[in-house]
Amino acid sequence: MRRVRMTVQYDGTAYHGWQEQRRPEGGAVGAGVRTVQGTLLEALATILGCRVRIEGAGRTDAGVHALGQVAAFDLEREMPLARLEAALNSRLPPDIAVADLAEAPPTFRPSADAVSKHYRYRLWADRAKPVLEARYVWHWWRPIALGPMEEAARHLAGRRDFASFQSRGGEREDTVRTLLRLEVAARGREIHFDVEGDAFLYRMVRNLVGTLVEVGCGHRPPEWVAAAVEARDRCAAGPCAPPQGLCLMAVRY
Amino acid sequence: MRRVRMTVQYDGTAYHGWQEQRRPEGGAVGAGVRTVQGTLLEALATILGCRVRIEGAGRTDAGVHALGQVAAFDLEREMPLARLEAALNSRLPPDIAVADLAEAPPTFRPSADAVSKHYRYRLWADRAKPVLEARYVWHWWRPIALGPMEEAARHLAGRRDFASFQSRGGEREDTVRTLLRLEVAARGREIHFDVEGDAFLYRMVRNLVGTLVEVGCGHRPPEWVAAAVEARDRCAAGPCAPPQGLCLMAVRY
Repeated sequence: MRRVRMTVQYDGTAYHGWQEQRRPEGGAVGAGVRTVQGTLLEALATILGCRVRIEGAGRTDAGVHALGQVAAFDLEREMPLARLEAALNSRLPPDIAVADLAEAPPTFRPSADAVSKHYRYRLWADRAKPVLEARYVWHWWRPIALGPMEEAARHLAGRRDFASFQSRGGEREDTVRTLLRLEVAARGREIHFDVEGDAFLYRMVRNLVGTLVEVGCGHRPPEWVAAAVEARDRCAAGPCAPPQGLCLMAVRY
Repeated sequence: MRRVRMTVQYDGTAYHGWQEQRRPEGGAVGAGVRTVQGTLLEALATILGCRVRIEGAGRTDAGVHALGQVAAFDLEREMPLARLEAALNSRLPPDIAVADLAEAPPTFRPSADAVSKHYRYRLWADRAKPVLEARYVWHWWRPIALGPMEEAARHLAGRRDFASFQSRGGEREDTVRTLLRLEVAARGREIHFDVEGDAFLYRMVRNLVGTLVEVGCGHRPPEWVAAAVEARDRCAAGPCAPPQGLCLMAVRY
Protein backbone atom coordinates (compact mmCIF):
# COMPACT_ATOMS: atom_id res chain seq x y z
CA MET A 1 0.00 0.00 0.00
CA ARG A 2 1.42 3.36 -1.04
CA ARG A 3 0.22 6.83 -0.08
CA VAL A 4 0.22 9.14 -3.09
CA ARG A 5 0.32 12.94 -2.95
CA MET A 6 -1.22 14.70 -5.93
CA THR A 7 -0.99 18.37 -6.98
CA VAL A 8 -4.18 19.35 -8.79
CA GLN A 9 -4.98 22.36 -10.97
CA TYR A 10 -8.45 23.31 -12.14
CA ASP A 11 -10.63 25.96 -13.68
CA GLY A 12 -13.53 25.82 -11.21
CA THR A 13 -16.09 27.54 -13.47
CA ALA A 14 -17.96 24.36 -14.36
CA TYR A 15 -17.81 22.71 -10.91
CA HIS A 16 -19.73 22.87 -7.66
CA GLY A 17 -16.43 23.24 -5.87
CA TRP A 18 -13.81 20.69 -4.85
CA GLN A 19 -16.40 18.80 -2.88
CA GLU A 20 -20.07 19.55 -2.42
CA GLN A 21 -20.26 21.80 0.63
CA ARG A 22 -23.95 21.90 1.40
CA ARG A 23 -26.78 19.73 0.18
CA PRO A 24 -29.45 21.45 -1.94
CA GLU A 25 -32.80 21.98 -0.15
CA GLY A 26 -34.54 18.65 0.01
CA GLY A 27 -32.09 17.07 -2.41
CA ALA A 28 -29.89 14.05 -1.89
CA VAL A 29 -26.21 14.71 -1.20
CA GLY A 30 -24.23 15.04 -4.41
CA ALA A 31 -27.19 14.19 -6.62
CA GLY A 32 -26.36 15.42 -10.13
CA VAL A 33 -23.71 17.78 -8.82
CA ARG A 34 -20.35 17.86 -10.59
CA THR A 35 -17.36 18.37 -8.30
CA VAL A 36 -13.60 18.35 -8.91
CA GLN A 37 -13.10 15.60 -6.35
CA GLY A 38 -15.86 13.49 -7.92
CA THR A 39 -14.37 13.93 -11.40
CA LEU A 40 -10.93 12.85 -10.13
CA LEU A 41 -12.49 9.86 -8.33
CA GLU A 42 -14.20 8.69 -11.50
CA ALA A 43 -11.03 9.01 -13.57
CA LEU A 44 -9.00 7.09 -10.95
CA ALA A 45 -11.66 4.40 -10.64
CA THR A 46 -11.66 3.81 -14.40
CA ILE A 47 -7.87 3.53 -14.51
CA LEU A 48 -7.41 1.45 -11.35
CA GLY A 49 -10.55 -0.66 -11.64
CA CYS A 50 -11.55 0.16 -8.07
CA ARG A 51 -12.74 3.18 -6.12
CA VAL A 52 -10.35 5.02 -3.80
CA ARG A 53 -10.84 7.72 -1.16
CA ILE A 54 -9.38 11.12 -2.07
CA GLU A 55 -8.69 13.71 0.62
CA GLY A 56 -8.06 17.33 -0.39
CA ALA A 57 -6.20 20.11 1.43
CA GLY A 58 -8.77 22.86 0.81
CA ARG A 59 -12.47 22.62 0.05
CA THR A 60 -12.66 25.31 -2.62
CA ASP A 61 -16.15 26.68 -3.29
CA ALA A 62 -18.15 26.54 -6.51
CA GLY A 63 -16.44 28.65 -9.18
CA VAL A 64 -13.13 28.94 -7.31
CA HIS A 65 -9.96 27.83 -9.14
CA ALA A 66 -6.74 26.10 -8.07
CA LEU A 67 -3.19 25.94 -9.37
CA GLY A 68 -1.82 24.19 -6.28
CA GLN A 69 -4.53 22.11 -4.63
CA VAL A 70 -3.03 19.10 -2.85
CA ALA A 71 -4.82 15.78 -2.44
CA ALA A 72 -3.88 12.25 -1.39
CA PHE A 73 -5.08 8.67 -1.87
CA ASP A 74 -3.93 5.15 -1.14
CA LEU A 75 -2.73 3.11 -4.08
CA GLU A 76 -2.75 -0.67 -3.88
CA ARG A 77 -1.36 -1.35 -7.33
CA GLU A 78 2.28 -1.47 -8.41
CA MET A 79 1.73 1.02 -11.25
CA PRO A 80 4.55 3.57 -11.84
CA LEU A 81 3.37 7.06 -10.82
CA ALA A 82 4.50 8.67 -14.10
CA ARG A 83 2.24 6.27 -16.00
CA LEU A 84 -0.68 6.93 -13.65
CA GLU A 85 -0.20 10.69 -14.02
CA ALA A 86 -0.25 10.46 -17.83
CA ALA A 87 -3.32 8.19 -17.75
CA LEU A 88 -5.14 10.60 -15.41
CA ASN A 89 -4.36 13.66 -17.49
CA SER A 90 -5.52 12.06 -20.71
CA ARG A 91 -8.77 10.95 -19.05
CA LEU A 92 -9.55 14.17 -17.14
CA PRO A 93 -11.42 17.00 -18.91
CA PRO A 94 -9.34 20.00 -20.13
CA ASP A 95 -10.29 22.05 -17.05
CA ILE A 96 -8.63 19.67 -14.55
CA ALA A 97 -4.97 18.63 -14.56
CA VAL A 98 -2.73 16.60 -12.29
CA ALA A 99 0.48 18.64 -12.13
CA ASP A 100 2.39 16.15 -9.99
CA LEU A 101 2.10 12.72 -8.37
CA ALA A 102 4.61 11.69 -5.69
CA GLU A 103 5.10 9.12 -2.94
CA ALA A 104 4.11 10.42 0.50
CA PRO A 105 4.51 9.03 4.04
CA PRO A 106 1.69 6.55 4.83
CA THR A 107 0.25 8.95 7.41
CA PHE A 108 0.11 11.99 5.09
CA ARG A 109 -3.08 14.06 5.58
CA PRO A 110 -3.32 16.91 3.01
CA SER A 111 -5.48 19.16 5.17
CA ALA A 112 -4.37 18.41 8.74
CA ASP A 113 -0.65 18.40 7.88
CA ALA A 114 -0.72 21.72 6.00
CA VAL A 115 1.34 24.52 7.57
CA SER A 116 -0.25 27.19 5.41
CA LYS A 117 -2.33 27.81 2.31
CA HIS A 118 -1.78 30.61 -0.19
CA TYR A 119 -4.75 32.06 -2.05
CA ARG A 120 -4.67 34.80 -4.68
CA TYR A 121 -7.70 36.96 -5.45
CA ARG A 122 -7.68 38.84 -8.79
CA LEU A 123 -9.63 42.07 -9.15
CA TRP A 124 -9.90 43.52 -12.68
CA ALA A 125 -9.71 47.24 -11.89
CA ASP A 126 -10.46 48.81 -15.25
CA ARG A 127 -13.53 50.27 -16.95
CA ALA A 128 -12.88 48.06 -19.97
CA LYS A 129 -14.60 44.67 -19.65
CA PRO A 130 -12.22 41.73 -19.24
CA VAL A 131 -12.89 39.18 -21.96
CA LEU A 132 -10.27 36.45 -21.99
CA GLU A 133 -9.91 36.93 -18.18
CA ALA A 134 -13.66 37.09 -17.41
CA ARG A 135 -13.73 33.65 -15.77
CA TYR A 136 -10.80 34.45 -13.47
CA VAL A 137 -11.35 37.98 -12.14
CA TRP A 138 -13.87 40.16 -10.35
CA HIS A 139 -14.59 43.13 -12.63
CA TRP A 140 -14.52 46.37 -10.62
CA TRP A 141 -15.21 49.31 -12.93
CA ARG A 142 -15.48 52.11 -10.37
CA PRO A 143 -12.41 53.96 -9.00
CA ILE A 144 -10.42 52.06 -6.40
CA ALA A 145 -7.33 53.17 -4.43
CA LEU A 146 -4.49 50.88 -3.37
CA GLY A 147 -3.11 52.93 -0.43
CA PRO A 148 -6.16 52.72 1.88
CA MET A 149 -6.44 48.96 1.22
CA GLU A 150 -2.77 48.45 2.14
CA GLU A 151 -3.38 50.39 5.36
CA ALA A 152 -6.53 48.37 6.13
CA ALA A 153 -4.70 45.09 5.45
CA ARG A 154 -2.37 45.84 8.39
CA HIS A 155 -5.43 45.56 10.68
CA LEU A 156 -6.02 42.03 9.40
CA ALA A 157 -2.60 40.38 9.22
CA GLY A 158 -1.43 38.35 12.21
CA ARG A 159 -3.15 36.10 14.76
CA ARG A 160 -6.74 37.28 15.35
CA ASP A 161 -10.30 36.20 15.88
CA PHE A 162 -11.82 36.23 12.38
CA ALA A 163 -15.43 35.51 13.45
CA SER A 164 -16.60 38.55 11.41
CA PHE A 165 -15.24 36.88 8.27
CA GLN A 166 -16.90 33.45 8.57
CA SER A 167 -19.97 33.10 6.33
CA ARG A 168 -23.14 31.27 7.35
CA GLY A 169 -22.67 27.61 6.60
CA GLY A 170 -19.31 27.53 8.38
CA GLU A 171 -19.84 26.23 11.90
CA ARG A 172 -16.38 26.64 13.44
CA GLU A 173 -16.59 27.81 17.00
CA ASP A 174 -12.88 28.47 17.34
CA THR A 175 -12.51 31.34 14.89
CA VAL A 176 -8.94 32.35 15.75
CA ARG A 177 -6.63 32.06 12.76
CA THR A 178 -3.22 33.41 11.72
CA LEU A 179 -2.84 35.43 8.54
CA LEU A 180 0.86 35.10 7.70
CA ARG A 181 0.58 37.41 4.71
CA LEU A 182 -2.01 39.76 3.26
CA GLU A 183 -0.54 41.71 0.37
CA VAL A 184 -2.37 44.07 -1.96
CA ALA A 185 -0.50 44.87 -5.17
CA ALA A 186 -1.22 46.44 -8.57
CA ARG A 187 -0.44 44.12 -11.51
CA GLY A 188 -1.17 45.95 -14.76
CA ARG A 189 -4.94 46.42 -14.98
CA GLU A 190 -5.45 44.08 -12.03
CA ILE A 191 -5.13 44.29 -8.26
CA HIS A 192 -3.93 41.06 -6.64
CA PHE A 193 -4.71 40.14 -3.04
CA ASP A 194 -2.23 37.49 -1.84
CA VAL A 195 -3.49 35.85 1.33
CA GLU A 196 -1.56 33.19 3.20
CA GLY A 197 -2.79 31.69 6.46
CA ASP A 198 -2.51 28.65 8.68
CA ALA A 199 -6.16 27.78 8.06
CA PHE A 200 -9.30 29.54 6.84
CA LEU A 201 -12.92 29.83 7.88
CA TYR A 202 -15.80 29.33 5.44
CA ARG A 203 -15.49 31.99 2.68
CA MET A 204 -12.95 33.88 4.78
CA VAL A 205 -10.69 34.98 1.89
CA ARG A 206 -13.60 36.29 -0.15
CA ASN A 207 -14.99 38.10 2.91
CA LEU A 208 -11.58 39.68 3.56
CA VAL A 209 -11.36 40.87 -0.05
CA GLY A 210 -14.92 42.21 -0.03
CA THR A 211 -14.07 44.15 3.13
CA LEU A 212 -10.85 45.61 1.70
CA VAL A 213 -12.67 46.69 -1.45
CA GLU A 214 -15.17 48.65 0.72
CA VAL A 215 -12.15 50.63 1.90
CA GLY A 216 -10.49 50.86 -1.54
CA CYS A 217 -13.56 52.40 -3.14
CA GLY A 218 -13.87 54.96 -0.36
CA HIS A 219 -17.05 53.66 1.31
CA ARG A 220 -15.18 53.16 4.58
CA PRO A 221 -11.94 54.41 6.16
CA PRO A 222 -9.08 51.93 6.81
CA GLU A 223 -9.69 52.00 10.61
CA TRP A 224 -13.20 50.64 10.06
CA VAL A 225 -11.57 47.27 9.35
CA ALA A 226 -10.10 47.12 12.88
CA ALA A 227 -13.61 47.73 14.27
CA ALA A 228 -15.02 45.06 11.95
CA VAL A 229 -12.59 42.49 13.39
CA GLU A 230 -13.34 43.64 16.94
CA ALA A 231 -17.11 43.20 16.48
CA ARG A 232 -16.90 39.41 15.95
CA ASP A 233 -20.05 39.79 13.84
CA ARG A 234 -20.34 38.92 10.13
CA CYS A 235 -22.59 41.95 9.59
CA ALA A 236 -19.83 44.29 10.76
CA ALA A 237 -17.50 43.39 7.88
CA GLY A 238 -17.86 43.93 4.11
CA PRO A 239 -19.68 41.73 1.56
CA CYS A 240 -18.37 38.46 0.14
CA ALA A 241 -16.39 38.90 -3.09
CA PRO A 242 -17.59 36.73 -6.01
CA PRO A 243 -15.94 33.29 -6.37
CA GLN A 244 -14.36 33.51 -9.81
CA GLY A 245 -11.56 35.87 -8.70
CA LEU A 246 -10.20 33.35 -6.21
CA CYS A 247 -7.47 30.76 -6.82
CA LEU A 248 -5.74 28.36 -4.40
CA MET A 249 -2.10 28.88 -5.39
CA ALA A 250 -0.19 26.57 -3.04
CA VAL A 251 -0.37 24.49 0.12
CA ARG A 252 2.78 24.40 2.24
CA TYR A 253 3.84 21.53 4.54
CA MET B 1 -26.47 59.44 -40.37
CA ARG B 2 -23.22 58.63 -38.60
CA ARG B 3 -20.76 55.85 -39.40
CA VAL B 4 -19.53 54.21 -36.19
CA ARG B 5 -16.32 52.23 -35.84
CA MET B 6 -16.31 49.63 -33.09
CA THR B 7 -13.40 47.67 -31.58
CA VAL B 8 -14.66 44.29 -30.39
CA GLN B 9 -13.08 41.72 -28.07
CA TYR B 10 -14.34 38.19 -27.58
CA ASP B 11 -13.64 34.75 -26.24
CA GLY B 12 -14.74 32.74 -29.26
CA THR B 13 -15.13 29.40 -27.43
CA ALA B 14 -18.93 29.53 -27.35
CA TYR B 15 -19.47 30.96 -30.85
CA HIS B 16 -19.63 29.65 -34.40
CA GLY B 17 -17.21 32.37 -35.38
CA TRP B 18 -17.70 36.04 -36.11
CA GLN B 19 -20.20 35.18 -38.80
CA GLU B 20 -21.37 31.81 -39.97
CA GLN B 21 -18.93 30.75 -42.70
CA ARG B 22 -20.58 27.77 -44.27
CA ARG B 23 -24.14 26.50 -43.99
CA PRO B 24 -24.56 23.06 -42.40
CA GLU B 25 -25.47 20.30 -44.88
CA GLY B 26 -29.12 20.73 -45.83
CA GLY B 27 -29.66 23.28 -43.06
CA ALA B 28 -30.90 26.81 -43.35
CA VAL B 29 -28.33 29.60 -43.12
CA GLY B 30 -27.72 30.64 -39.53
CA ALA B 31 -30.45 28.42 -38.12
CA GLY B 32 -29.78 27.99 -34.41
CA VAL B 33 -26.17 29.06 -34.79
CA ARG B 34 -24.75 31.58 -32.32
CA THR B 35 -22.24 34.01 -33.82
CA VAL B 36 -20.41 37.04 -32.42
CA GLN B 37 -21.87 39.29 -35.12
CA GLY B 38 -25.39 37.99 -34.43
CA THR B 39 -25.02 38.57 -30.70
CA LEU B 40 -23.83 42.16 -31.32
CA LEU B 41 -26.71 42.73 -33.77
CA GLU B 42 -29.28 41.61 -31.19
CA ALA B 43 -27.81 43.82 -28.46
CA LEU B 44 -27.74 46.83 -30.80
CA ALA B 45 -31.30 46.17 -32.01
CA THR B 46 -32.61 46.06 -28.44
CA ILE B 47 -30.88 49.33 -27.54
CA LEU B 48 -31.66 51.22 -30.77
CA GLY B 49 -35.11 49.78 -31.43
CA CYS B 50 -34.16 48.90 -35.00
CA ARG B 51 -31.87 46.47 -36.78
CA VAL B 52 -28.60 47.68 -38.28
CA ARG B 53 -26.05 46.10 -40.62
CA ILE B 54 -22.68 45.32 -39.02
CA GLU B 55 -19.60 44.76 -41.16
CA GLY B 56 -16.51 43.17 -39.61
CA ALA B 57 -12.85 43.38 -40.63
CA GLY B 58 -12.05 39.68 -40.27
CA ARG B 59 -14.35 36.66 -40.34
CA THR B 60 -12.82 34.71 -37.48
CA ASP B 61 -13.66 30.99 -37.41
CA ALA B 62 -15.53 29.05 -34.73
CA GLY B 63 -13.48 28.99 -31.51
CA VAL B 64 -11.09 31.78 -32.59
CA HIS B 65 -10.75 34.80 -30.26
CA ALA B 66 -10.27 38.53 -30.81
CA LEU B 67 -8.83 41.40 -28.83
CA GLY B 68 -8.88 43.86 -31.73
CA GLN B 69 -11.65 42.95 -34.17
CA VAL B 70 -12.96 46.07 -35.93
CA ALA B 71 -16.54 46.47 -37.12
CA ALA B 72 -18.73 49.31 -38.36
CA PHE B 73 -22.39 50.23 -38.59
CA ASP B 74 -24.57 53.22 -39.48
CA LEU B 75 -26.28 55.00 -36.60
CA GLU B 76 -29.36 57.10 -37.27
CA ARG B 77 -29.97 58.25 -33.71
CA GLU B 78 -28.38 61.18 -31.89
CA MET B 79 -27.22 59.01 -28.96
CA PRO B 80 -23.79 59.86 -27.46
CA LEU B 81 -21.31 57.09 -28.28
CA ALA B 82 -20.10 56.75 -24.65
CA ARG B 83 -23.67 55.98 -23.58
CA LEU B 84 -24.14 53.50 -26.42
CA GLU B 85 -20.85 51.77 -25.49
CA ALA B 86 -21.91 51.40 -21.83
CA ALA B 87 -25.36 50.14 -22.85
CA LEU B 88 -23.82 47.59 -25.22
CA ASN B 89 -21.33 46.29 -22.66
CA SER B 90 -23.96 45.84 -19.99
CA ARG B 91 -26.22 43.97 -22.42
CA LEU B 92 -23.56 41.77 -24.06
CA PRO B 93 -22.57 38.46 -22.42
CA PRO B 94 -19.29 38.37 -20.42
CA ASP B 95 -17.41 36.82 -23.34
CA ILE B 96 -17.98 39.78 -25.71
CA ALA B 97 -16.92 43.38 -25.04
CA VAL B 98 -16.94 46.60 -27.01
CA ALA B 99 -13.53 48.16 -26.23
CA ASP B 100 -14.13 51.34 -28.19
CA LEU B 101 -16.76 53.18 -30.24
CA ALA B 102 -15.70 56.13 -32.42
CA GLU B 103 -16.99 58.25 -35.28
CA ALA B 104 -15.66 57.12 -38.67
CA PRO B 105 -15.83 58.62 -42.18
CA PRO B 106 -19.18 57.75 -43.87
CA THR B 107 -17.39 55.55 -46.40
CA PHE B 108 -15.45 53.48 -43.81
CA ARG B 109 -15.31 49.77 -44.70
CA PRO B 110 -13.62 47.71 -41.93
CA SER B 111 -12.44 44.90 -44.21
CA ALA B 112 -11.71 46.65 -47.51
CA ASP B 113 -9.97 49.64 -45.89
CA ALA B 114 -7.67 47.53 -43.68
CA VAL B 115 -3.95 47.85 -44.45
CA SER B 116 -3.06 44.82 -42.37
CA LYS B 117 -4.30 42.40 -39.74
CA HIS B 118 -2.25 41.02 -36.87
CA TYR B 119 -3.01 37.55 -35.53
CA ARG B 120 -1.28 35.80 -32.64
CA TYR B 121 -1.24 32.03 -32.28
CA ARG B 122 -0.39 30.63 -28.81
CA LEU B 123 1.18 27.19 -28.49
CA TRP B 124 1.46 25.78 -24.96
CA ALA B 125 4.81 23.96 -25.25
CA ASP B 126 4.99 22.09 -21.96
CA ARG B 127 4.24 18.57 -20.80
CA ALA B 128 2.05 19.97 -18.00
CA LYS B 129 -1.56 20.46 -19.10
CA PRO B 130 -2.66 24.09 -19.32
CA VAL B 131 -5.70 24.62 -17.14
CA LEU B 132 -6.59 28.29 -16.86
CA GLU B 133 -5.19 28.76 -20.40
CA ALA B 134 -6.85 25.68 -21.95
CA ARG B 135 -9.37 27.73 -23.96
CA TYR B 136 -6.67 29.95 -25.47
CA VAL B 137 -3.76 27.70 -26.45
CA TRP B 138 -2.88 24.62 -28.46
CA HIS B 139 -1.31 22.12 -26.07
CA TRP B 140 1.83 20.63 -27.62
CA TRP B 141 3.39 18.16 -25.17
CA ARG B 142 6.12 16.66 -27.37
CA PRO B 143 9.54 18.32 -27.81
CA ILE B 144 9.58 21.32 -30.13
CA ALA B 145 12.54 23.48 -31.25
CA LEU B 146 12.36 27.20 -31.93
CA GLY B 147 15.41 27.54 -34.24
CA PRO B 148 14.14 25.40 -37.15
CA MET B 149 10.75 27.18 -37.03
CA GLU B 150 12.46 30.59 -37.20
CA GLU B 151 14.44 29.39 -40.21
CA ALA B 152 11.29 27.99 -41.87
CA ALA B 153 9.40 31.25 -41.21
CA ARG B 154 11.84 33.07 -43.47
CA HIS B 155 10.54 30.98 -46.39
CA LEU B 156 7.02 32.28 -45.70
CA ALA B 157 7.41 36.00 -44.98
CA GLY B 158 7.00 38.42 -47.88
CA ARG B 159 4.80 38.52 -50.98
CA ARG B 160 4.05 34.99 -52.19
CA ASP B 161 1.41 32.71 -53.60
CA PHE B 162 -0.12 31.04 -50.53
CA ALA B 163 -2.37 28.58 -52.42
CA SER B 164 -0.92 25.72 -50.33
CA PHE B 165 -2.27 27.40 -47.19
CA GLN B 166 -5.90 27.96 -48.25
CA SER B 167 -8.28 25.37 -46.79
CA ARG B 168 -11.21 23.88 -48.67
CA GLY B 169 -14.15 26.21 -48.29
CA GLY B 170 -12.06 29.22 -49.31
CA GLU B 171 -12.63 29.89 -52.97
CA ARG B 172 -10.18 32.71 -53.67
CA GLU B 173 -8.55 32.28 -57.05
CA ASP B 174 -5.99 35.02 -56.49
CA THR B 175 -3.97 33.46 -53.69
CA VAL B 176 -1.08 35.94 -53.65
CA ARG B 177 -0.77 37.67 -50.27
CA THR B 178 1.90 39.62 -48.39
CA LEU B 179 3.07 38.46 -44.96
CA LEU B 180 4.55 41.61 -43.42
CA ARG B 181 5.66 39.75 -40.31
CA LEU B 182 5.93 36.15 -39.17
CA GLU B 183 7.70 35.96 -35.82
CA VAL B 184 8.17 32.88 -33.66
CA ALA B 185 9.12 33.61 -30.05
CA ALA B 186 9.30 31.78 -26.71
CA ARG B 187 7.14 33.36 -23.98
CA GLY B 188 7.57 31.37 -20.76
CA ARG B 189 5.94 27.98 -21.33
CA GLU B 190 4.39 29.19 -24.57
CA ILE B 191 5.54 29.78 -28.12
CA HIS B 192 3.86 32.73 -29.83
CA PHE B 193 3.47 33.01 -33.59
CA ASP B 194 2.83 36.64 -34.54
CA VAL B 195 1.53 36.88 -38.07
CA GLU B 196 0.73 40.16 -39.79
CA GLY B 197 -0.43 40.34 -43.38
CA ASP B 198 -2.31 42.51 -45.86
CA ALA B 199 -5.07 39.90 -46.13
CA PHE B 200 -5.51 36.21 -45.42
CA LEU B 201 -6.93 33.18 -47.18
CA TYR B 202 -9.39 30.80 -45.46
CA ARG B 203 -7.66 29.28 -42.39
CA MET B 204 -4.30 30.56 -43.67
CA VAL B 205 -2.84 31.49 -40.25
CA ARG B 206 -3.73 28.11 -38.74
CA ASN B 207 -2.30 26.32 -41.79
CA LEU B 208 0.92 28.34 -41.51
CA VAL B 209 1.23 27.46 -37.81
CA GLY B 210 0.49 23.78 -38.43
CA THR B 211 3.21 23.76 -41.10
CA LEU B 212 5.80 25.45 -38.85
CA VAL B 213 5.04 22.98 -36.05
CA GLU B 214 5.82 20.10 -38.45
CA VAL B 215 9.29 21.62 -38.71
CA GLY B 216 9.60 22.46 -35.00
CA CYS B 217 8.93 18.90 -33.90
CA GLY B 218 11.46 17.55 -36.39
CA HIS B 219 9.10 15.83 -38.82
CA ARG B 220 10.36 18.03 -41.66
CA PRO B 221 13.44 20.17 -42.35
CA PRO B 222 13.02 23.98 -42.65
CA GLU B 223 13.59 23.90 -46.45
CA TRP B 224 10.51 21.69 -46.85
CA VAL B 225 8.43 24.80 -46.21
CA ALA B 226 9.85 26.48 -49.33
CA ALA B 227 8.82 23.42 -51.36
CA ALA B 228 5.38 23.48 -49.73
CA VAL B 229 4.84 27.06 -50.92
CA GLU B 230 6.16 26.21 -54.37
CA ALA B 231 3.74 23.29 -54.80
CA ARG B 232 0.61 25.50 -54.69
CA ASP B 233 -1.18 22.45 -53.28
CA ARG B 234 -2.85 22.28 -49.85
CA CYS B 235 -1.64 18.68 -49.44
CA ALA B 236 1.99 19.79 -49.71
CA ALA B 237 1.82 21.88 -46.50
CA GLY B 238 1.26 20.88 -42.86
CA PRO B 239 -2.05 20.29 -41.06
CA CYS B 240 -4.38 23.01 -39.79
CA ALA B 241 -3.66 24.05 -36.18
CA PRO B 242 -6.73 23.94 -33.88
CA PRO B 243 -8.79 27.16 -33.58
CA GLN B 244 -8.51 27.95 -29.87
CA GLY B 245 -4.85 29.09 -30.06
CA LEU B 246 -5.69 31.89 -32.50
CA CYS B 247 -6.53 35.49 -31.64
CA LEU B 248 -7.09 38.52 -33.90
CA MET B 249 -4.97 41.12 -32.10
CA ALA B 250 -5.36 44.25 -34.24
CA VAL B 251 -6.49 45.61 -37.58
CA ARG B 252 -4.44 48.49 -38.98
CA TYR B 253 -5.75 51.23 -41.31
